[in-house]
Amino acid sequence: MYTHPTTYRVCYADTDQMQYMYYGNYARLYEIGRVEAMRALGFSYRAFEEAGIMMPVLDLQSKFLQPARYDELLQIQTTVLELPSVRIKFKYEVFNEQNVLLNEGFTTLVFVNKQTNKPCKAPADFLVALQSFFK
Amino acid sequence: MYTHPTTYRVCYADTDQMQYMYYGNYARLYEIGRVEAMRALGFSYRAFEEAGIMMPVLDLQSKFLQPARYDELLQIQTTVLELPSVRIKFKYEVFNEQNVLLNEGFTTLVFVNKQTNKPCKAPADFLVALQSFFK
Amino acid sequence: MYTHPTTYRVCYADTDQMQYMYYGNYARLYEIGRVEAMRALGFSYRAFEEAGIMMPVLDLQSKFLQPARYDELLQIQTTVLELPSVRIKFKYEVFNEQNVLLNEGFTTLVFVNKQTNKPCKAPADFLVALQSFFK
Amino acid sequence: MYTHPTTYRVCYADTDQMQYMYYGNYARLYEIGRVEAMRALGFSYRAFEEAGIMMPVLDLQSKFLQPARYDELLQIQTTVLELPSVRIKFKYEVFNEQNVLLNEGFTTLVFVNKQTNKPCKAPADFLVALQSFFK
Repeated sequence: MYTHPTTYRVCYADTDQMQYMYYGNYARLYEIGRVEAMRALGFSYRAFEEAGIMMPVLDLQSKFLQPARYDELLQIQTTVLELPSVRIKFKYEVFNEQNVLLNEGFTTLVFVNKQTNKPCKAPADFLVALQSFFK
Repeated sequence: MYTHPTTYRVCYADTDQMQYMYYGNYARLYEIGRVEAMRALGFSYRAFEEAGIMMPVLDLQSKFLQPARYDELLQIQTTVLELPSVRIKFKYEVFNEQNVLLNEGFTTLVFVNKQTNKPCKAPADFLVALQSFFK
Repeated sequence: MYTHPTTYRVCYADTDQMQYMYYGNYARLYEIGRVEAMRALGFSYRAFEEAGIMMPVLDLQSKFLQPARYDELLQIQTTVLELPSVRIKFKYEVFNEQNVLLNEGFTTLVFVNKQTNKPCKAPADFLVALQSFFK
Repeated sequence: MYTHPTTYRVCYADTDQMQYMYYGNYARLYEIGRVEAMRALGFSYRAFEEAGIMMPVLDLQSKFLQPARYDELLQIQTTVLELPSVRIKFKYEVFNEQNVLLNEGFTTLVFVNKQTNKPCKAPADFLVALQSFFK
């Protein structure tokens, strides 16, 4: 498996009147987590799109174990559990500064050819880069 | 079961550069769906909070079947599948103007006493109002 | 001048831990206000974009007089103060249910030809529709 | 004057279907800019709130000169132009990676005593820290 940590500071915009980070904002954290995990491998989602490949999200699961609070510097641990094919599944674990697990999530994304609007295989060089983590 | 429809107009703020409604914004639609479903029964989440009961979200699942597009007037069909106890589970189905199912989601929320910060039973009058739908 | 009212229900996603609607969310309300003001005249911003005209925002001013609170049904009063040419200026007034003015804002948008990426005149039929309000 | 730079990576959640960062999201950037400017001086807005001082926003001005694009690493330059009293005014300049000025903004915030809900003076130690930049 391949795993990568990213930090995220909870801002006021993220909070709600329960003094929690609003549950809908974790999707943004997951996005940041997976994009930075790809970047750390040498790939950018922006470059994928420019090369004609989109990655829409197919499904999302999220468990809210403890609230994230304003101004906490969270750690988003993003993991690719299996080698992707047409789809790629990411796992996310969000920890606070005391290393308490606040949230656990999963998303499945699909590689789509922008021209045909059909699913396609993950870019070959991206697969090669991931393979070294799955031996 | 108890089910209630609400409409939601996709605004520019909701879109992303894929020309889809951003996947993180469905959580907002679910929130609007369940709050309006409660209001249609005669209950307001604001009044619950004022009476000392919070309803944080415990988990979320979402399937993105088709993209929602800018300016579409979506229908959010919100359903309570079982009588709640300490927890309440909502199902959401999001349809576009052509009645195509775009998204399906579930959330579990827990009733929490603000004073003790402990889980508590759903308010009795809310349960009574729901019971007539579960015979 | 041309003026049009729209309602907006403050949702939990909009609130922050100060128990106010977050100051950044008024831009969304302004967007909804101007789009609905255009729709009431028979025009849709979606149709403008499909016809090759974008309307990016050039500037924004906002005064936060009183906080908007969770679950309030706000009224957004949107006004076109002058006939547009290449630019169009909107004024927004946001009122709560007690008709208290909470917020006042202005935005200037520019009509842009998507092909050339250059400013262009407002669509002729839109101007005609507005002219009847400026006599 | 006191000035401080912060970086911000534009995420997909920030974009809209015009392929710009949505105009409403600059308020979040301004928030991040001013909070990090305060942190660099040794002060945290979280600590202010915990000590009973809120800082709601009174007004906002923004000029959108060039669009911010997906995945750009923006620089937010935040400046305090004058020593604050009961109010504090921040200026923001947002630059892209090519150092092009994309956006310029201003916000005025007011120090409010949470107990009395009345405006109050800026905390004395915060003023002392700022004074060294205004000689």
